Amino acid sequence: MEKISIIKIGGNIIDNEVHLASFLSAYAAVEGKKILIHGGGKLATKMATDLNIPQQMVDGRRITDAATLKIVTMVYAGYINKNIVAALQSKNINALGICGADANIIKAHKRINATIDYGFVGDIDAVDTEKIIAFLHTGLSLVVAPITHDGAGQLLNTNADTMAQSIATALSHVYEVSLVYSFEKKGVLSDIHNNESVIPVIHSQNYASLKASGQVNEGMIPKLDNCFYALEKNVSKVCIGKSDMLFNKEFRCTTIQ
Amino acid sequence: MEKISIIKIGGNIIDNEVHLASFLSAYAAVEGKKILIHGGGKLATKMATDLNIPQQMVDGRRITDAATLKIVTMVYAGYINKNIVAALQSKNINALGICGADANIIKAHKRINATIDYGFVGDIDAVDTEKIIAFLHTGLSLVVAPITHDGAGQLLNTNADTMAQSIATALSHVYEVSLVYSFEKKGVLSDIHNNESVIPVIHSQNYASLKASGQVNEGMIPKLDNCFYALEKNVSKVCIGKSDMLFNKEFRCTTIQ
Repeated sequence: MEKISIIKIGGNIIDNEVHLASFLSAYAAVEGKKILIHGGGKLATKMATDLNIPQQMVDGRRITDAATLKIVTMVYAGYINKNIVAALQSKNINALGICGADANIIKAHKRINATIDYGFVGDIDAVDTEKIIAFLHTGLSLVVAPITHDGAGQLLNTNADTMAQSIATALSHVYEVSLVYSFEKKGVLSDIHNNESVIPVIHSQNYASLKASGQVNEGMIPKLDNCFYALEKNVSKVCIGKSDMLFNKEFRCTTIQ
Repeated sequence: MEKISIIKIGGNIIDNEVHLASFLSAYAAVEGKKILIHGGGKLATKMATDLNIPQQMVDGRRITDAATLKIVTMVYAGYINKNIVAALQSKNINALGICGADANIIKAHKRINATIDYGFVGDIDAVDTEKIIAFLHTGLSLVVAPITHDGAGQLLNTNADTMAQSIATALSHVYEVSLVYSFEKKGVLSDIHNNESVIPVIHSQNYASLKASGQVNEGMIPKLDNCFYALEKNVSKVCIGKSDMLFNKEFRCTTIQ
């Protein structure tokens, strides 16, 4: 089976020009087929502040009202996506920047929740694997913004970690998939105040105790749940850490098994 | 030769939700291969005002400083492009929204001008015809935002009329191309205050006198120059008018010959 790398970058890489440039150099050096999924970082929050659009948060999650959807569509699918594409083009990576509505790649539905109305948040229904493969076969490297659509004309704000997992899972029938969550730290830390306290391996046996002890905190749990789900669905390798691991196989990271 | 329609929509269609919805229904009904190029309308100017970013104008042309480039990238390639894509998907048109940087479709250079520094404005150098054809052959309908790149990582704001002309011209070697500039009026008007005063045909013989008499005004001249250039370069048909002409061949418009 041919290999493919599905790499997701988080907010702190996008927010910092130096980190982003360094990441993109590492990304350009990754051999073989690859897909980049980016989040939005703090740029969307800053834009909302600049435009005096109040951000509603419930349980640490942003509510995507119509004004916020407009902002995330602009910032994620416009500003961040196209700047990454242009930067990759300058490194001879023929990037194609898309969101889930483009070529109908990712269809979703507006989240249904009995207690909280998350607004225009999308939960993924389907990934068009064939279309992604067709793009890859023509030598294009996809750069995916975390916006999907419902097929009825509505764009939806969608979690980038979950998008990466969904794409990885969909492609696992055709490729040997590595799923990489890259952020500013070396991996999942057992002590949040110690950047060297990387947990080398998280597997289903120690995951429960890591959660119980609080070593794995709230923000990390949905990400790790995505990792375990991907492994269940035939994704070959899942890791979390710094972009250095993309070109240096010896570089420490957290491997999920 | 297979036919293709290259349709550009202007600001007043984009600024008005009812006009845009009506245009997209007309566009969806256009038979055969088609490409949509959209401008940005007043949304970018409004966004600049909301963000307190002053807009410099020289001779009626916007100077694209770094802050303005960020806004047009967000608004054109993000908000407008993705909303059009989602709307077309709901009409069973498999749209792929791109800017010139995506798949390296349109390369440009920063405008060189001895007297005015236009900032991050791009003049087009090359259109990747083969890549466009490859997308069309897979059944995708391109939706193009007027942002290009210089190949060295810099995005550039580019005139949408010229982008439409460049794409039409590039494809004229392979397709029988119709180039349509669609806006809120029925065509080029001989009397700006009379919406029914459509000039039916503009050709090289009457163009000079229309300019001399002031019937064709300053804003229309660059558009008409693009039209004549496209005809010189083998584009089969060029017209300017309301979107009704897309589905009603009898609908009045201005034909450029």
